[in-house]
Amino acid sequence: MKFGLFGGAIARRGDETPDSQGYGRLIDLVQEAEELGYHSIFLVEHHFTGAGQISATLNLLTYLAAKTERIRLGTAVTVLPWHDPVLLAEQAATLDLLSRGRLDFGIGKGYRDVEFESFRVPKEEAQERFDESLGLILKSWTSDERFSHDGKYWRYSDIVVEPPVLQKPHPPLWTGAGTDESIARVAGAGLNVLFDQFAGFPRTGERLRVWRAACARSGRPFDPMQVGLARAVVIAEDRRAYEAAVQTREQRVARMVGAYGALPGVAGNQPETYAEPGRASDALIGDPEEVLRRLRELERMGFEYILILLPDDVETLRRFAREIMPELQGEGVPVA
Amino acid sequence: MKFGLFGGAIARRGDETPDSQGYGRLIDLVQEAEELGYHSIFLVEHHFTGAGQISATLNLLTYLAAKTERIRLGTAVTVLPWHDPVLLAEQAATLDLLSRGRLDFGIGKGYRDVEFESFRVPKEEAQERFDESLGLILKSWTSDERFSHDGKYWRYSDIVVEPPVLQKPHPPLWTGAGTDESIARVAGAGLNVLFDQFAGFPRTGERLRVWRAACARSGRPFDPMQVGLARAVVIAEDRRAYEAAVQTREQRVARMVGAYGALPGVAGNQPETYAEPGRASDALIGDPEEVLRRLRELERMGFEYILILLPDDVETLRRFAREIMPELQGEGVPVA
Repeated sequence: MKFGLFGGAIARRGDETPDSQGYGRLIDLVQEAEELGYHSIFLVEHHFTGAGQISATLNLLTYLAAKTERIRLGTAVTVLPWHDPVLLAEQAATLDLLSRGRLDFGIGKGYRDVEFESFRVPKEEAQERFDESLGLILKSWTSDERFSHDGKYWRYSDIVVEPPVLQKPHPPLWTGAGTDESIARVAGAGLNVLFDQFAGFPRTGERLRVWRAACARSGRPFDPMQVGLARAVVIAEDRRAYEAAVQTREQRVARMVGAYGALPGVAGNQPETYAEPGRASDALIGDPEEVLRRLRELERMGFEYILILLPDDVETLRRFAREIMPELQGEGVPVA
Repeated sequence: MKFGLFGGAIARRGDETPDSQGYGRLIDLVQEAEELGYHSIFLVEHHFTGAGQISATLNLLTYLAAKTERIRLGTAVTVLPWHDPVLLAEQAATLDLLSRGRLDFGIGKGYRDVEFESFRVPKEEAQERFDESLGLILKSWTSDERFSHDGKYWRYSDIVVEPPVLQKPHPPLWTGAGTDESIARVAGAGLNVLFDQFAGFPRTGERLRVWRAACARSGRPFDPMQVGLARAVVIAEDRRAYEAAVQTREQRVARMVGAYGALPGVAGNQPETYAEPGRASDALIGDPEEVLRRLRELERMGFEYILILLPDDVETLRRFAREIMPELQGEGVPVA
């Protein structure tokens, strides 16, 4: 198994720190995560939240590219309808080049109503905009010849997009998918998939079966490193810590649903996809043995790439890397 | 006097180097320039040239922010009509934060016909788009309250833009100006000014007088660090090297005029603004004594901030820093 990280950082307006405390902590953490053997960091992108979430994700990742050597750098996800596709292709290519081929480009069509309203993009255009943008980005990256584009949402004349990407034919594309239908579509389109942190184990296993079947149908070999499974992890040594962690987790998920009216990758918020109440059965909560046991369960389902939600304390990342990773196919760097 | 650098780098499609040779050289050069005592690096932004010019300039500068400590990081210039103003404000703020307040944000309305055509932006909209975008960027950086914007070119509802900029009230804004009218407009608008590398000394001195007068009229104190003067420098030890350098310089300028039909900051390509033929009288070409003599001439006019066009060889930067800078108010780091 391989382990990556996903999450964000906070740099809020009116924060009195002289530089960005939140970004600074993230930067330190990613450098340490690389040393600890984590394979990737996927960062969110959000706009206008008032909570200081990362907005210029490709820029922050470009900074991290300069501060790291090996860890892969991902977006989770860049919402295509907000961006000029060609400028975005240039920015992503620049990151791919500067990081020497470490970009994992996670893309989506958007799910937060409030972002559609703020950008004045009608939500019903989301899929069309996503499709047009993705086509343009791929052409921008791969065409050595000049081309023009007369689309519904974007138009360009006689362009060739530079710099070139380093990963050929182009950086891996990732996107979230929750329903059987969207999972099959993503598999057929040749993108990699990100499964969310919310679905309980039974639904999560089912999603992987749907993915495999869809790959088989479209003649695509199954590669477990093209399936990222997001999971929250809390190392809780005793019963009391366990119960506190479960409660915190469930409150957090409820807050997200309340704030945005939806969870990413959870179409229509079907209750099936979020766990049994009172058990936070989506998350990996417990002592190291319990977390390991749950991971082995995922491994038996066929998952080999787990993306851990950035925990509140870096100590969890250290313990996970030192006590749990080495048990699973030699990942992680044991520390003397 | 203080000395910055301006220029670009090349990362061309089909380049067989495994990482970006061009960007890599620039990165090394900027790190060395910081050590040598240069105050700033201003990077160009261009799109679709087919020559591999930097397109995602804020991203490359964000990488440089991580590789440097003190040198200021500028764009010269970001063309506002190509960009979503709010996404651009987010990206620039992220760089300002990550660099701990080192962003010099150079902006323009565009001048290359071919870029207007490629982006399908009518050139006659350039000034209006520039004005609307600039207003939005300033509001995005400075408003802690949510706001909506219903402009001619861009519309948003109920947004607050994050992260915050570090420099308060906002990073310095720079823009090019060549004619008396545009110089006066820039002074009145509170922006800093970039004077081009092409105008000969007489016109350059005149521009500074126009700037000072316009500052006085708008009650703005004259600050010589708000006036950047771009200049090409070639250290040529003998007559033969001098003549070769003059010829190279004049060919290069002629190529730029030929390729883009215009030079930045040179309204209508008035011949007055580009030098006397056969003398490249805009540039600082000669042995160190001659270059120093020319710089003292600029100093007497009132210039204190010179932006040197990135030379083809880094040795010029080293010699300039070691042999010339120390003669002018202690700039530069003498090397044992």
